[in-house]
Amino acid sequence: MRILVLGGDGYLGWPTALHLSDRGHHVAVLDNFARRSYDDELGLQSLVPIESLHHRVQAWHEVSGRRLELFVGDLLDAEFLLDAVSRFRPAAIVHYAEQRSAPYSMIDRKHAVYTQHNNVIGTLNVMFAIAEVDCDIHLVKLGTMGEYGTPNIDIEEGWLTVEHNGRTDRMLYPKKPGSFYHLTKVHDSHNIEFGCRTWGLRATDLNQGVVYGQQTDQTGRDPRLATRFDYDAVFGTVLNRFVIQAVLGHPLTVYGSGGQTRGLIDIRDTIECIRLACENPAGAGEFRVFNQITETMSVADIAKTVAATFPGNVEVEYLDNPRVELDEHYYNVVHTGLIELGLQPHLLSDTLIDSLFAVAARHIDRADLSLMRPTINWRTPANRP
Amino acid sequence: MRILVLGGDGYLGWPTALHLSDRGHHVAVLDNFARRSYDDELGLQSLVPIESLHHRVQAWHEVSGRRLELFVGDLLDAEFLLDAVSRFRPAAIVHYAEQRSAPYSMIDRKHAVYTQHNNVIGTLNVMFAIAEVDCDIHLVKLGTMGEYGTPNIDIEEGWLTVEHNGRTDRMLYPKKPGSFYHLTKVHDSHNIEFGCRTWGLRATDLNQGVVYGQQTDQTGRDPRLATRFDYDAVFGTVLNRFVIQAVLGHPLTVYGSGGQTRGLIDIRDTIECIRLACENPAGAGEFRVFNQITETMSVADIAKTVAATFPGNVEVEYLDNPRVELDEHYYNVVHTGLIELGLQPHLLSDTLIDSLFAVAARHIDRADLSLMRPTINWRTPANRP
Repeated sequence: MRILVLGGDGYLGWPTALHLSDRGHHVAVLDNFARRSYDDELGLQSLVPIESLHHRVQAWHEVSGRRLELFVGDLLDAEFLLDAVSRFRPAAIVHYAEQRSAPYSMIDRKHAVYTQHNNVIGTLNVMFAIAEVDCDIHLVKLGTMGEYGTPNIDIEEGWLTVEHNGRTDRMLYPKKPGSFYHLTKVHDSHNIEFGCRTWGLRATDLNQGVVYGQQTDQTGRDPRLATRFDYDAVFGTVLNRFVIQAVLGHPLTVYGSGGQTRGLIDIRDTIECIRLACENPAGAGEFRVFNQITETMSVADIAKTVAATFPGNVEVEYLDNPRVELDEHYYNVVHTGLIELGLQPHLLSDTLIDSLFAVAARHIDRADLSLMRPTINWRTPANRP
Repeated sequence: MRILVLGGDGYLGWPTALHLSDRGHHVAVLDNFARRSYDDELGLQSLVPIESLHHRVQAWHEVSGRRLELFVGDLLDAEFLLDAVSRFRPAAIVHYAEQRSAPYSMIDRKHAVYTQHNNVIGTLNVMFAIAEVDCDIHLVKLGTMGEYGTPNIDIEEGWLTVEHNGRTDRMLYPKKPGSFYHLTKVHDSHNIEFGCRTWGLRATDLNQGVVYGQQTDQTGRDPRLATRFDYDAVFGTVLNRFVIQAVLGHPLTVYGSGGQTRGLIDIRDTIECIRLACENPAGAGEFRVFNQITETMSVADIAKTVAATFPGNVEVEYLDNPRVELDEHYYNVVHTGLIELGLQPHLLSDTLIDSLFAVAARHIDRADLSLMRPTINWRTPANRP
């Protein structure tokens, strides 16, 4: 199958491209390197060094004998995007190409506007490119569990059958996202559902939880194939950040009481979910939603698990929560759709965390402690990045 | 009360500014004249001639002795907007300043992207201006009944108490909008609800139905104070368009079976709703939603009412529906919030329609028949405007 991976240079886009290529698909990656420019802007870097995309593509060819096609450009450039889709003619488009950090979107007005413009308009351009080239191209779009917030009822997979005053309807699940970033994913979901309903687009919206892990079967074959490992307070996801804090001998920084419960997923399961979604496309006109998590855990429990697994001494530090969110809440998520397609989850385990400690220890000289404390506060419309 | 009307040069923004000024409020209008530029782009004009904003403001001063302040600029220019809000220091901001035509947003990719960018980013800039100047400034934002679509359950006022698997939560009412324009209002609602929840903004979201009518107590005092009267297939609202078609001896153009039921409101009630919302602000952190309609009617019944009232012969023509929407559906809308604040509705009546016939007849020589047939089709991503 021909698959175009938008954002194919990112933390998940790159391992996804390799996994799909390894399974025999004909893969192209498209990227504008925005993620690398955020590093430059904020003075960050991946703990694990990463090669340029051109070098990675070359390395994959040397290691596997397989070729990836490469498109360098921006989704906001609609002509470029339409040309790439027309020329590559994918059967599926996997769309990771959005600004993905909640704190980044909350820095100030410019970062909020950038995030909403980049994500929403980029995705509109993807929808129009599909509609203009071939409505049968299956859009596999990364959403986030953060679209739902923390409702007091069970979280279904994107749709909810609502009973009200004796009548019923199947409706989009009501959303309460927690940042300008999370809002963009809600906006995208609404736009794409409209495209399915009006033009007959086929779409799978993957509401992904917090991803952890750094190695996959493919990226582990050569150091030049490594993907990012972010530990800073802006782009680091929580479990990865705790692992690096433990290796550094730095306290694990939990926001508030740590009672916030989140859905988690191993990076190896993420890329497998994408493969399953691509190989089992949504129907014509179908807006299909999966909750892409394999387990749920409170942030305090994630910290305790990392601390208990680490061979040395680890402290947990409870900071004032810079975010506006509930510390304690109900959280029960339906996530059966991907299991029904065949996903066999890797659940969080000691051995997995051990392997992350090893990755972090190997590169710990690259870490900058000052980047790990939250400086972006939700309560004010202007932070200093 | 100091009130800033964004989009104060438009069909509703202008009469709103006059109504508020007439009631003793200190009013400023802000506009970038986008609505006039759509006329130039598409070769349209208001059936009733309208003066320039500067002339209108001068005429209102001559007629009433009251002054309106004037800010000319674009909400996408965040510095300009922040400066206007800082200098005028309103207690309330009434926000009409969005591209408001569903067909316009469906012309092609450029018009869809323009509409989403203009509306969503403009409103983000308004939220940030309020948050930076004073979170107590009450945002009175125009939404649309089209955010809801036509669900099979009762339409509540913005929020819905959902019972699911034995638990309950109060959630944003699930939305199913019918165009890229309607989607922008859904996006705005989510963004603004987040601003209320996170920054403590005060907001009233007015989900307005189809507006009809052209004269108000204020605009009727001098021909120079007239507001727009649109009859074309892009910007004309359905009842106004039927009135003008009747006067022209042109068949009333009903899409599909005309079974689509819509909420309606008289222009005089619209401006009164705005006054009531401003004078009774939402609480700090409250995202308050009102359904701004006074009655519901099917499109076929609206056509029949216009035809029956017109003193001459009128035909009704049923066209293939260019939109993707249900022809027959349940539609029951709660709209008690504004009544509780004191709204006394003008319901649709023969005398009202008669007065509209008179307005249309006075200017019928300005009408262009060719602009009344729908040319923009929902089913294709590229129409020729």
